[in-house]
Amino acid sequence: MTEITAQPLTAGAFAPFGDVLELTDRDSLTINAGMCQRHHDLAQLDFGEGRAGISLFDGKARHFPYALDMVERHPLGSQAFIPMNGVPLLVSVCPDKDGAPGTPHAFIMRPDQAVNLHKGTWHGVLAPIAAQGLYAVVDRIGGGENLEEFRFADPVLVHPPSG
Amino acid sequence: MTEITAQPLTAGAFAPFGDVLELTDRDSLTINAGMCQRHHDLAQLDFGEGRAGISLFDGKARHFPYALDMVERHPLGSQAFIPMNGVPLLVSVCPDKDGAPGTPHAFIMRPDQAVNLHKGTWHGVLAPIAAQGLYAVVDRIGGGENLEEFRFADPVLVHPPSG
Repeated sequence: MTEITAQPLTAGAFAPFGDVLELTDRDSLTINAGMCQRHHDLAQLDFGEGRAGISLFDGKARHFPYALDMVERHPLGSQAFIPMNGVPLLVSVCPDKDGAPGTPHAFIMRPDQAVNLHKGTWHGVLAPIAAQGLYAVVDRIGGGENLEEFRFADPVLVHPPSG
Repeated sequence: MTEITAQPLTAGAFAPFGDVLELTDRDSLTINAGMCQRHHDLAQLDFGEGRAGISLFDGKARHFPYALDMVERHPLGSQAFIPMNGVPLLVSVCPDKDGAPGTPHAFIMRPDQAVNLHKGTWHGVLAPIAAQGLYAVVDRIGGGENLEEFRFADPVLVHPPSG
């Protein structure tokens, strides 16, 4: 069985898979007479021939060690996850390798981060850690086959970050 | 001075101004082998000739009674606010009356609700209640003049919900 350790979610490490939406000094402008900072346009959204929609995902708790037995991807659009109740997600992703998932990586979000999976990124299903999680999801609404699934012959066991 | 009382945010009362994104029995489908409910496509997004973007708004606390001295609207696109740190927004809105804001209404979100202002809805600036608030905002990215402001001759004083 393959075993991996989840890492803290950082923009640099996650760049091959998608965007980390978080407060930084970049792309920040002051609005509302100084009362608000707008951190502008942080995600590479791509809905192809479809359109953007916002849905709510209400997901049951998952726990470490987490058995990642399958991943999926959405070939027609990006998918963003915005935590609404402070429960971080375990985000498991794989690079594509000849049309199938390559080496898996796992990241843990902070509650003040959101994440946007680029179009076609292999990823695990919604995995709120240790509690029921509520997320706003910005993804593609439209026709066409927008789901591919890949089941691992042996599950990947994901351990919590060390320390 | 006009004085109004904020109301709890409900889909019915807010319908003339926008969408309330919350968990209900409507538009809900089970995904991820029973582990997640997807409450599907809850907002009327409209970005016209622009595109969707996700930004983060980091707003300073406001307090009751709140002096609503101006409202603004975005004639070219809808704007959704998704709370990320549990701080509800005071959402002040007005119907349009001959190109200017009509009678103001005010609503308080619950932390498990998000809100989408329909294109062109007059609304107050970001007003996190009693604490610094972090929100993901889904709105229009693109050229053109997408901001109109209207300053009230006398501020509208908004009181907290009674009880």
